[in-house]
Amino acid sequence: MFDLRPVGYVIGLLVAVLGATMLLPMALDIYQGNGHWDVFFQSAVISTLSGGLIALACANGVEDRLSIQQTFVLTTGVWLALPVFAALPFVLGATEARYVDAFFEAMSGLTTTGATVFSGLDSLPQGLLLWRSMLQWFGGVGIIVVAMVFLPELRVGGMQIFRSEAFDTGGKVLPRAVEIASHISWIYLVLTVICALSYNAVGLPPFDALNHALTTIATGGFSTHDASFGLYQGVPEYVAAVFMILASLPFVRYVQLLAGQARPMLRDSQVHIYLATIAVFVLVIAAFRVIANGDQYERAFREGIFNVTSIISGTGYSSVDYQLWGNFPVVLFFFIGLIGGCAGSTSCSIKIFRYQLLFSAILVQIKKIYAPHGFFQPRYQGRPVDDEVLSSVMSFFVYFVVTLGTITVLLGATGLDATTALSGAAATLANIGPGLGDQIGPSGNFAGLNDTAKWIMSAAMLIGRLELMAVYVMLTLQFWRV
Amino acid sequence: MFDLRPVGYVIGLLVAVLGATMLLPMALDIYQGNGHWDVFFQSAVISTLSGGLIALACANGVEDRLSIQQTFVLTTGVWLALPVFAALPFVLGATEARYVDAFFEAMSGLTTTGATVFSGLDSLPQGLLLWRSMLQWFGGVGIIVVAMVFLPELRVGGMQIFRSEAFDTGGKVLPRAVEIASHISWIYLVLTVICALSYNAVGLPPFDALNHALTTIATGGFSTHDASFGLYQGVPEYVAAVFMILASLPFVRYVQLLAGQARPMLRDSQVHIYLATIAVFVLVIAAFRVIANGDQYERAFREGIFNVTSIISGTGYSSVDYQLWGNFPVVLFFFIGLIGGCAGSTSCSIKIFRYQLLFSAILVQIKKIYAPHGFFQPRYQGRPVDDEVLSSVMSFFVYFVVTLGTITVLLGATGLDATTALSGAAATLANIGPGLGDQIGPSGNFAGLNDTAKWIMSAAMLIGRLELMAVYVMLTLQFWRV
Ligand SMILES: [K+]
Ligand SMILES: [K+]
Repeated sequence: MFDLRPVGYVIGLLVAVLGATMLLPMALDIYQGNGHWDVFFQSAVISTLSGGLIALACANGVEDRLSIQQTFVLTTGVWLALPVFAALPFVLGATEARYVDAFFEAMSGLTTTGATVFSGLDSLPQGLLLWRSMLQWFGGVGIIVVAMVFLPELRVGGMQIFRSEAFDTGGKVLPRAVEIASHISWIYLVLTVICALSYNAVGLPPFDALNHALTTIATGGFSTHDASFGLYQGVPEYVAAVFMILASLPFVRYVQLLAGQARPMLRDSQVHIYLATIAVFVLVIAAFRVIANGDQYERAFREGIFNVTSIISGTGYSSVDYQLWGNFPVVLFFFIGLIGGCAGSTSCSIKIFRYQLLFSAILVQIKKIYAPHGFFQPRYQGRPVDDEVLSSVMSFFVYFVVTLGTITVLLGATGLDATTALSGAAATLANIGPGLGDQIGPSGNFAGLNDTAKWIMSAAMLIGRLELMAVYVMLTLQFWRV
Repeated sequence: MFDLRPVGYVIGLLVAVLGATMLLPMALDIYQGNGHWDVFFQSAVISTLSGGLIALACANGVEDRLSIQQTFVLTTGVWLALPVFAALPFVLGATEARYVDAFFEAMSGLTTTGATVFSGLDSLPQGLLLWRSMLQWFGGVGIIVVAMVFLPELRVGGMQIFRSEAFDTGGKVLPRAVEIASHISWIYLVLTVICALSYNAVGLPPFDALNHALTTIATGGFSTHDASFGLYQGVPEYVAAVFMILASLPFVRYVQLLAGQARPMLRDSQVHIYLATIAVFVLVIAAFRVIANGDQYERAFREGIFNVTSIISGTGYSSVDYQLWGNFPVVLFFFIGLIGGCAGSTSCSIKIFRYQLLFSAILVQIKKIYAPHGFFQPRYQGRPVDDEVLSSVMSFFVYFVVTLGTITVLLGATGLDATTALSGAAATLANIGPGLGDQIGPSGNFAGLNDTAKWIMSAAMLIGRLELMAVYVMLTLQFWRV
């Protein structure tokens, strides 16, 4: 087997850094004088020490480069190790969570899923609320970097189509991955600040504005209130919609924009189709509500754009329970959740570019059926697409659906009803957050599920966030034999 | 555009033949003296005349060979035209159905779906009951011939993998498609006779034995009673399970068996995996019922094997409402329905061989991820598989899932609740029959749905029965431009 120490070293360092970031909510709780700061102090000490020791133990094996195998173990290992420690404040703090709940919440945070097992959020110490939002924010920026730098190299789920893109298009400006990552982190930070200021400007108190900005740009969806965005109906819903959309566009386009290149963003067919899809669904939902329910125009449009954007970007905020609108919106929102945003953003699920590629491949195949000797080549953004990329994308789709089915059956085996099992599987695997039904729907909560279901869903969040293949690849024996 | 007359000629002839077969239920009703025979006489006259006129009108364009385009139009055209006329007895007869219901029932029959809009079956004239069973029986043999002779040539949904098989393996014995078709029809008939005799031997009255034999071998699932197989609990359930399995094995293997070649059947990995899958699900369901519900062993096993076989083969009989067993069986049966039987049988849905190919392709792809320069080739039945076949199978899967989602959303838009919409879409697209929930579940009925939903579901049955691509291929403009 290959050397795991370089992997352990990086994971150890990241755990230690995570521990250090716990000093932020600690400082907030000290400032608030709520007597809750020691929770973060203890958690910080445990995490920093553990992380440091892991890193030290592995330090003598550190190499300059990681092999493909090591990179895979690292990617999954990071998202598995961080929640273990990120969960500590929930166990030690005012939430007094059992470990299964704390781990679920931490995984839901770091994978930007946003499903929560906590209620009574409004009365929690602010440090804990900030910690939840921070986890999503870290998870969001982490996944963009992984999606842009790691996954294309690992040829996972068709992401290799963005291989040359990150390095070529912006290539002259930014030759190295580290530079890209740092540029993206800056943009991510600046977007968050603008979002927070905007929220504050339209009426959210500073603390709520900050937290919702952190979880909007991460398309995470954790809120500081049990009512989620229900407290801020009206103009804030439009502001949220704008930033949820911005957060689910390809971040490399922002890097190019800042380098003075507006064309790549304006000409990106992924962006066009994403925006068009949102527009169509908003119109359908708004029209349905006006016609079928006789709702008022502005309200139908506003709640339409807020909720469609929230689900398609995978943010998962709710301002109202759309299950009350009728049967049709329920079914539609389920499938909207399986679309997802753009690749290279904080958004998750199957994603627009895969549908574009699938559609293109399928059209070619239909033509081949009645013209077997013709030559047809699927295209993406005007360029011909490799067969390897296409079959990666198709298998991703197959994996996704088969995984969704398997998780649903497993959840059903723990006793969940069909609606909760299927929508819960989708909500966690696609990192959306809320499911359907009374229990885990937009006005529900994951607290009442059985422990086994919570572990299964935690695994689903991890698998979904890492585009499935990055996890599955480690399930073959040969992987470990090199 | 190409010449549609050769297509019209064949369709006209088949409609006329269908009309002639209406004399069978007519004869039964005359023998019964129930005063219902004129319904079939009228329907027979209308169908035979219309079919004859269509054929006549197209007769001057008949050619020796059909082009690929013509073959596609023929396949879909047959399954679209026959229900139009097969519906007549339901409109004119004791069911007094509106046309939408009659067409739904006829389509459900000819596609071997088995979803019904009629209740009070037990008191219907026997001619009508026989007609429903006959439609499924015709549909069943028709689809085997299409799947063995047409679809492989049309390179639809990966069926091209069976291209050489039908002609090579048994090739020395049976050189031509017509011969294969006639051999298969004989086997189909003999299986039906044995099945009817077996049913009669275990207690079904002759008329019930005949009808259930017709719909068992077609994996159709229409019954002569509202309670479906609930009237015949006990030994008949085992007998039904055996014949439902036999009906969902590849029929070409029976041809080979009769030619003295037992090896192809015994060595067919599709058959092995199909039987193993059934065994696993039966054990899981039986164990669940014994452990969770404290049910009696024999009953748990018997109802397990009957219902698993009924759903996986796509027959859709029910002997009990498995929704009463708990949440887990409901979820599990939904996904069992999406597996399906073997290719080249009367069974439908995604089918075992596609899962084999998907699994094989996915394993190869995982290996390629960490050994990009290695050479790996997916295999099926020990032979290497062409890339074209694999991408056909993968796109079939994508089509199937996207179609399922689209139909669910459309059904939701007509006002159906989420469970009815999703399970109804699956039950019709996969030609299973019963869905889930109170309305269209195992003890329900499709009568109460709105008309739009019935038309959508009729279309779903057709699309699913013809393996999707055979219908979709006609949706491109270029198809018609040759
Ligand atoms: K989310
Ligand atoms: K059926």
